[in-house]
Amino acid sequence: MSNILCLAESNNQLFNTWQYELTPYLKDSNAYGNIYFARYFEWQGLCREKWFSECVCHNMFELNGSLVTRSAANDYIASIFPFQKVRCLLNTQHIRAASFDLVFRFYDMESNQLLSIGHQKIALIGPESKKPVRFPKEILDKVRFYVTECH
Amino acid sequence: MSNILCLAESNNQLFNTWQYELTPYLKDSNAYGNIYFARYFEWQGLCREKWFSECVCHNMFELNGSLVTRSAANDYIASIFPFQKVRCLLNTQHIRAASFDLVFRFYDMESNQLLSIGHQKIALIGPESKKPVRFPKEILDKVRFYVTECH
Amino acid sequence: MSNILCLAESNNQLFNTWQYELTPYLKDSNAYGNIYFARYFEWQGLCREKWFSECVCHNMFELNGSLVTRSAANDYIASIFPFQKVRCLLNTQHIRAASFDLVFRFYDMESNQLLSIGHQKIALIGPESKKPVRFPKEILDKVRFYVTECH
Amino acid sequence: MSNILCLAESNNQLFNTWQYELTPYLKDSNAYGNIYFARYFEWQGLCREKWFSECVCHNMFELNGSLVTRSAANDYIASIFPFQKVRCLLNTQHIRAASFDLVFRFYDMESNQLLSIGHQKIALIGPESKKPVRFPKEILDKVRFYVTECH
Repeated sequence: MSNILCLAESNNQLFNTWQYELTPYLKDSNAYGNIYFARYFEWQGLCREKWFSECVCHNMFELNGSLVTRSAANDYIASIFPFQKVRCLLNTQHIRAASFDLVFRFYDMESNQLLSIGHQKIALIGPESKKPVRFPKEILDKVRFYVTECH
Repeated sequence: MSNILCLAESNNQLFNTWQYELTPYLKDSNAYGNIYFARYFEWQGLCREKWFSECVCHNMFELNGSLVTRSAANDYIASIFPFQKVRCLLNTQHIRAASFDLVFRFYDMESNQLLSIGHQKIALIGPESKKPVRFPKEILDKVRFYVTECH
Repeated sequence: MSNILCLAESNNQLFNTWQYELTPYLKDSNAYGNIYFARYFEWQGLCREKWFSECVCHNMFELNGSLVTRSAANDYIASIFPFQKVRCLLNTQHIRAASFDLVFRFYDMESNQLLSIGHQKIALIGPESKKPVRFPKEILDKVRFYVTECH
Repeated sequence: MSNILCLAESNNQLFNTWQYELTPYLKDSNAYGNIYFARYFEWQGLCREKWFSECVCHNMFELNGSLVTRSAANDYIASIFPFQKVRCLLNTQHIRAASFDLVFRFYDMESNQLLSIGHQKIALIGPESKKPVRFPKEILDKVRFYVTECH
């Protein structure tokens, strides 16, 4: 599966990491010449949805409930520019019965410089109650496959 | 109703025109410094949906069917820049039983220079059949109120 | 100045708060029916840029340097839907020589329910060096006018 | 070059066609469940810029002038949904000294059904004068490589 990468992290632990290569275009830039800060969240969304549909659950709309974003955050380390090749690495963290976190690390593909780090907390809410419900075990097992300790 | 404007057009005809003032921000700009061409279509969407919900039908989701965009087009006459005040004038054209056109004219609010002209064709399709259905008469009457001959 | 609001906060302190009313449209929604999480960051951007250009510095491009976003975050408390009227309150926090924070609180305009809270850290970097530089005193004074202790 | 495709068109003519595969995600959808009409123009932009940078001129910002969009249009033939695989075919038309047209045809990758057709007119304007200037011959030659008669 070409999008999975084994990464040697701190403490000599190996983590399974999902990766995706993306290229920003003019639509993502702004009058300062670099990529607008809000676009990084579109990338978080694109990566999480591609990962989820390819690696966790083929059709998110068939889950017995809705995925909701509880929080989202991004730290901007270096500017990104149109046409720059960017690699996004996705891992999971803090996996609970009804929520888990995603961590996104964006790297320049040529220099391997870390450009940005993002975090999200995702939960599942019931179709009627709109209250948190437990993820099915087969979903959590697949989410756990990508877990990392790194921040 | 503050968003309606009486405009004296060619041939000494008066047309009822809906208007909306909008300001582009950094998110709408691109690395060339001006507003990205695709954003004008977000403005077309914003204006048509604001006009429709305020002047035609309070809740578009309660129509017996779905509004669909058959075509959309835009001519770019002069560049627009972040923070520039823009006035959008909206009229209707070519009103049929199951479709009508929208025309959008974007003006610089200071100079009244015409910046851009857009067109859309909107249709109503049935909730099940997904085939064109007639608009209710009370909808078409309100759509007809904004009709213009201008292009 | 119509966009400034005096708010009585905890500890009987009064804070100057900038406010803006916004309405999400179809372009901001997604297939779940509610507003997509990344759009809240476009709103953060829109509000900060409108506030900055109206209340702090008329033309951000004439600053001797570039404004950069160091971090951005958002907590999602209740779903927002197309056409729902939303009030954004903006305040400043943690004002330093070369950076300050923005806090955004989004409320439903009918019920006054808190829908979402956002945070950003903004810095100024030099035009050549790309290193942090001090904000001019007249900028910081205006930024300080909107300071709050609330979180 | 993997993105170029030889297509047998009407009249037994062969045209060189650039193709790109894209997948819409939640950010591209709207509360009706399908893809929002304005996103098709972001795809037009993405495809033209990827094609231009890969096949015509590596760095569009190094051209002696700016590329401008004179007009853009799209016909919507069938709805597109999140996660649906879409193939975009790009060709050129009406090539003049200072402008050319782009035609975009979007197909469902499974059924080969035509989903949408788009058109743009692109021009080059001088860096100072902002008036139309001729494209360099090496640019036009590459643009001509993708010419088609089809509509």
